[in-house]
Amino acid sequence: MSKKYFGIDIGGTNTKIGLLDSDFNILAEEKIKTHSKEGARNTFSRIWAKSLEMLKQQNVDLDDIVGIGMGIPGPVVNKSTVVIAANFSWGNNFNAKELMEEISNKPVRVENDVRLIALGEASFGAAKDFKNPVVIPIGTGVSAGIVQNGQVLEGSFGVAGEFGHIPIEEDGIPCGCGLTGCIETYVSAPGIVRYAKKIIDEKQYGLMYEYFKINNLEAHDVFRFYTQGDELSQMVIENFSKKLAYGMGMIINILNPDAIVIAGGVAKSSAIIIPLVKKYLPQYALSISKDIPIIQCSLGDSAGIKGAAALIKDM
Amino acid sequence: MSKKYFGIDIGGTNTKIGLLDSDFNILAEEKIKTHSKEGARNTFSRIWAKSLEMLKQQNVDLDDIVGIGMGIPGPVVNKSTVVIAANFSWGNNFNAKELMEEISNKPVRVENDVRLIALGEASFGAAKDFKNPVVIPIGTGVSAGIVQNGQVLEGSFGVAGEFGHIPIEEDGIPCGCGLTGCIETYVSAPGIVRYAKKIIDEKQYGLMYEYFKINNLEAHDVFRFYTQGDELSQMVIENFSKKLAYGMGMIINILNPDAIVIAGGVAKSSAIIIPLVKKYLPQYALSISKDIPIIQCSLGDSAGIKGAAALIKDM
Repeated sequence: MSKKYFGIDIGGTNTKIGLLDSDFNILAEEKIKTHSKEGARNTFSRIWAKSLEMLKQQNVDLDDIVGIGMGIPGPVVNKSTVVIAANFSWGNNFNAKELMEEISNKPVRVENDVRLIALGEASFGAAKDFKNPVVIPIGTGVSAGIVQNGQVLEGSFGVAGEFGHIPIEEDGIPCGCGLTGCIETYVSAPGIVRYAKKIIDEKQYGLMYEYFKINNLEAHDVFRFYTQGDELSQMVIENFSKKLAYGMGMIINILNPDAIVIAGGVAKSSAIIIPLVKKYLPQYALSISKDIPIIQCSLGDSAGIKGAAALIKDM
Repeated sequence: MSKKYFGIDIGGTNTKIGLLDSDFNILAEEKIKTHSKEGARNTFSRIWAKSLEMLKQQNVDLDDIVGIGMGIPGPVVNKSTVVIAANFSWGNNFNAKELMEEISNKPVRVENDVRLIALGEASFGAAKDFKNPVVIPIGTGVSAGIVQNGQVLEGSFGVAGEFGHIPIEEDGIPCGCGLTGCIETYVSAPGIVRYAKKIIDEKQYGLMYEYFKINNLEAHDVFRFYTQGDELSQMVIENFSKKLAYGMGMIINILNPDAIVIAGGVAKSSAIIIPLVKKYLPQYALSISKDIPIIQCSLGDSAGIKGAAALIKDM
C-alpha cells in the first residue's frame, strides 16, 4: 500500500478535485460544476462520486486514501466549520468536515481556499524553505496567508490575513467589505482595471487608451502595455506596486516574516511587480527587514489542491 | 520543596528583580541600577548577587529556584539572544541566556521586555481568558505583543509586533526608527505631548494652554485637562484615539485576535481611551470583528516581572 490523498478546491462556479500520491504529486485532476444552490449534501456527494471515479481510472484502492483536504471560500475555523456563508447558501457555522466525513467515510479537514494557496506554497512551493513566510495571493481580491510552524494562521473567527481591508484612503472608493478606500480597491485585478480606466479617462493618450476605445480592459492587458512602455499603464502599475508595498510593509512590521511570496493570478507579472515593490518598501518597512526575500509563487494553479492535501499530510 | 521563580526586567536605567512563588505571586521585589556601561557580565553578576540576597531575606532555598526569566530591551530571538544592541553596549547577537546561566547556574530564558508585558497579561492578567489576544503597551513607544497559544510571537529577527512603525502620514514628522509619520509619532506619551504643544501653539486658549505657560507638560496632564472639559486637550486625545484605532484596526484585520488589551503607562487613562477607540474602530476594522473586547491591563507595573517568570513556568 502507498498513501494517497484527495485535495479538493471548492469554488463558486467550479470544483477542482486532485488525487495526490505519497510525495504529493498530482496523479489526476478533474473539474466539476459546484452547483452550490442544490445544497451542500448534493455538491459533496457529486464531488465524492467523481473522486471514486478517479480512483477507478487510476487503479487506486480506496483503502490507500488517507484522507480528504478541502478548500472553501469564506471564514473557516477548526479545520472544519465555515463560519459565515458568504459565497454559498449553506448556512452559517456549516460543519463541512462532518458532512464530508459522513459521505466519504474518510477523515476530512477543511480550510479557507485562499489560505490553502499559502499552505501549498509553504509546504511544497516557493515558501517551503522558510520558517514564517507570508504568502500574498492577488486576484479578484488580496489577502495574506500567514504561515507559522507549517500552519496557516486562522484567527479567532477564521479571518486572519485580511490586510486587503485596511483602509488607506479617507476619500477612497467604497469596498465590498463595507469599509472605504481599502488596500484591495487598488491591490487586486479589478483594482488595477478600475484605476487604469480612471487614468485613461483623465489623460487620454497612448497605447492603452487606444486599445480601450474598442476593447474590454483586463489586468493582464495593463501589464502588457507596461512592458511596451505605455506611460498611462506605467502610472497604474507604479500606483499598484506602491500600495502593495505599503500593505506589505504593514505585514512586515507586524509579523516580521522571513519571506514574502506573491501568488494568485497577478503573480504572473511578478517580474514587473517585485522590483517596483522593492523600490517602495523602504518607505514603509523597518530597515531591519530591508533584505527580506520577496519571491514569486511556484505552484501556480495547483497551489490550492496541494494546499488542501497538505492539510492531511500528517495523517 | 515548593517551586520558586526569578522574573527580572532589565531597563535602561533600573533593573527590577522579582522573586515569585509557585502560583506566580511576587514574594519580593528589588530594584538596582542597571549600569549597563560596566558591561553585561558586571550587570548580570550584580543582578545575581542581589537575587541571592533576596533568597536569604525570604528564607528561600536556592535549590527551590526553578529558573530565571529575563526581559531586555531590543529584538530578542530564541529566548536567548539580543540581536541588535539598541539600548546597551553589549554588542550585537549577545547571548544573554548563556551568560546568565554561567553566572547563576540556573536555567535562563530571555525575551524582549515589551513582549514580556504581553506574556504577563496573557498568562496571569487581563488577557488570561483569551486564546489569541494582542496586548498593546503604550508608553514612550507603542508595539503589540501578539499572543498565540500562550506564546508571544517573536518574528524572524525578534521584531514582531512593531505596528507603531507603520507610517500613516506622508508629510509626518521623522520617527526615531528612520521612517516618517509612523503611528508611534502620535500613539505614545511623547506623541501626545508633541501634538498637544502643536495644538496649544495654534489655538492659544483654555486650561491646558494656561498651564503650559508656566509648567512642563506631560501626557497625564493632557488626560487630566480632558476630564476637565478643556477643548484643546480633547482635540489631542481624540486624535490620539483615532490613530490608535487605526493601528488597532490593522492588527485586527491581519491577525483576527479575540481580544485587545491596552497596557503601559498610558493604559492608566483607559477609561477615556477605550470608548473613543471603539467609536473610531468601525471605520478601520472589518465588521466581523466589531464586538472584539478592548480591555485595560490588570497587572500594572508588575506585568514585566510576571511575564519574565512566565517564560519559565513550564520548567
